[in-house]
Amino acid sequence: VPKVSQEHLEARREQILDGARQAFADHGYEGATVARLEEATGLSRGAIFHYFGSKQDLFVELAWHTNRRLGDILLERGLDDAVRAIAAESPAWLGVLIEAQTKLRHDPEFMRKMEIREAESSRLLGWFDERQADGSLRSDIPSAELGRYATAVINGLALRVVAHDPFDIEAFVRLLNDALAPR
Amino acid sequence: VPKVSQEHLEARREQILDGARQAFADHGYEGATVARLEEATGLSRGAIFHYFGSKQDLFVELAWHTNRRLGDILLERGLDDAVRAIAAESPAWLGVLIEAQTKLRHDPEFMRKMEIREAESSRLLGWFDERQADGSLRSDIPSAELGRYATAVINGLALRVVAHDPFDIEAFVRLLNDALAPR
Repeated sequence: VPKVSQEHLEARREQILDGARQAFADHGYEGATVARLEEATGLSRGAIFHYFGSKQDLFVELAWHTNRRLGDILLERGLDDAVRAIAAESPAWLGVLIEAQTKLRHDPEFMRKMEIREAESSRLLGWFDERQADGSLRSDIPSAELGRYATAVINGLALRVVAHDPFDIEAFVRLLNDALAPR
Repeated sequence: VPKVSQEHLEARREQILDGARQAFADHGYEGATVARLEEATGLSRGAIFHYFGSKQDLFVELAWHTNRRLGDILLERGLDDAVRAIAAESPAWLGVLIEAQTKLRHDPEFMRKMEIREAESSRLLGWFDERQADGSLRSDIPSAELGRYATAVINGLALRVVAHDPFDIEAFVRLLNDALAPR
């Protein structure tokens, strides 16, 4: 048995994720067939499914990557940069994310896999809690609702990005800030 | 040739639209096959396609109905009630609307049909213009951006409705109002 380094395994995983993200973005969730995933990653189905159990697992991993990255930006650089990051995302990738999440909402297996990742949302809620406690966010509305509203603004903006509809990102940032600011 | 009254034609059209909306909501855009449209409307494919040229035309008509109704609420009862109306929409129908609009964005035929309807958006923009002119909305940001932001909030809220995620609709209404209020 050849010895495979941890680095090699990681690099291979990244190669699969990058290729698959492109295939999903280009062809949609259904359209990203196993043959297209092979082509986009440059690897055989055997190799792909050695690292990820199924196409759905691969997609869930990618969706979670995007959510996690956005959460990291919120925690490290604040809400304004998180909103700006959405504006800079690939429209095609955001499109398949939204398409899949609306389409697969009736698939209990998919929803279960996504929910396992939902520890993420308590991390984000914590951010709104702390900002409310230190007086930088309004306190007349529960912090959970502030977080839900901010998430809705981000998702609504994502839909604009997907549709290639115009917007002024700095106007969005100001309007969201003013909504959440202490009264 | 039997004489068919205008009322009969209208009633038949409504019957098709109601059934088709349900079929799209239940099965998704792709899943709403012609056989399922027949079943849901209680009419033959011949009858259905006599009134609407294609499944896509039928869908565009339904999508436009929803947009139009929401626009009417905005114009007649204001933004708060338009936001509340989204919260009261059928999650399954909102889901297929969003799914189809993200999925069909690469379909030039679909986009062309939707854009013909876009006169709607100037009607809505006018509402924001007037409110800005009479001082009930902030004037430090162009009215078009206020409209885009409000639309994003409504669409982001629609995504929450689709996902059956919780929210306090009155908190959303206040946060949106406070964002748009004169400074």
